[in-house]
Amino acid sequence: MRITVVTSNPHKAEEVAAFFGDATEVEHELLEIPEYRYEDVAVIASEKARYAFERVRRPLIVDDTGFFIQALSGFPGSCAAYVMKTLGNDGILKLMEGVGNRKSWFETVIAYADGKDLKTFSGRIDGVIVPPRGSLGFGYDPIFEWEGRTLAELTTEEKSRISHRGLALAAFRDWFTGHNP
Amino acid sequence: MRITVVTSNPHKAEEVAAFFGDATEVEHELLEIPEYRYEDVAVIASEKARYAFERVRRPLIVDDTGFFIQALSGFPGSCAAYVMKTLGNDGILKLMEGVGNRKSWFETVIAYADGKDLKTFSGRIDGVIVPPRGSLGFGYDPIFEWEGRTLAELTTEEKSRISHRGLALAAFRDWFTGHNP
Repeated sequence: MRITVVTSNPHKAEEVAAFFGDATEVEHELLEIPEYRYEDVAVIASEKARYAFERVRRPLIVDDTGFFIQALSGFPGSCAAYVMKTLGNDGILKLMEGVGNRKSWFETVIAYADGKDLKTFSGRIDGVIVPPRGSLGFGYDPIFEWEGRTLAELTTEEKSRISHRGLALAAFRDWFTGHNP
Repeated sequence: MRITVVTSNPHKAEEVAAFFGDATEVEHELLEIPEYRYEDVAVIASEKARYAFERVRRPLIVDDTGFFIQALSGFPGSCAAYVMKTLGNDGILKLMEGVGNRKSWFETVIAYADGKDLKTFSGRIDGVIVPPRGSLGFGYDPIFEWEGRTLAELTTEEKSRISHRGLALAAFRDWFTGHNP
């Protein structure tokens, strides 16, 4: 079995390879994919997969991740990376001052394209916004608490087992290995 | 002279037609263009023009607008429409509580494509973030003050004469009529 991971981030390709193990050959394709601005990460991932397949022409996956806060109508959503860069966690906490409903979630969608099929696999982790704790991870991890710990208090191994991205990868792997036995 | 305005908003096409007057035939093409997620509105507008020309195949313009706040590292930038929908002006004002530097600006970029040329025309208006005033306009207009009045205190005619969008259109018109006498 062989799958191509299209990403500008080589670490992501390595992560997928580690996830699949020896039975699947994971290739990394470095391709500039347009950044799409939709609210639905599944739509973004699908558009990226469609675009990538037109160029790469072999079975591939791409991914996209959003971060959603219920009391802020989903904000920052698919603008999560840009909002981290501009407002950061301080800005999020300022917006959440005096807000009782702290519910939030991460969602990663992996989109698979092979020229015939275009499929998406979603992984989601639900938690609450808290004052920052922990020094691991990156981005919103310190202010996102899941079952009593922030994502910045989890090791990489713990995090990848329970995370949005790990769940989406597992869903894709189960489908892919079932269809390519 | 003839130019095609590619937009899902028929009002924009009418606005361009009014701007050009009788000497130029302005057509409206309703085309779904991908929403791109870049920080630079000129890049977004260029990508949209390139995409649109591949389908429409005649000289056309598209536009994109961002709203930038200096103290927030440019936020909401090209996520302006999404941030208006989720946080609204209340969210912006909350982020700006206690912030001394109120500088902000709107930028509209019009991109022109004809298969050979791909050109951009930028219009910008500088102002400051203030508590909401005025009932005209839409979006961020009530909290954006320009020369003592918010954009929501200007009539449509006043606003289009001094606005980012009006300036970008004027720059494009001057170039276009110069090249198509």
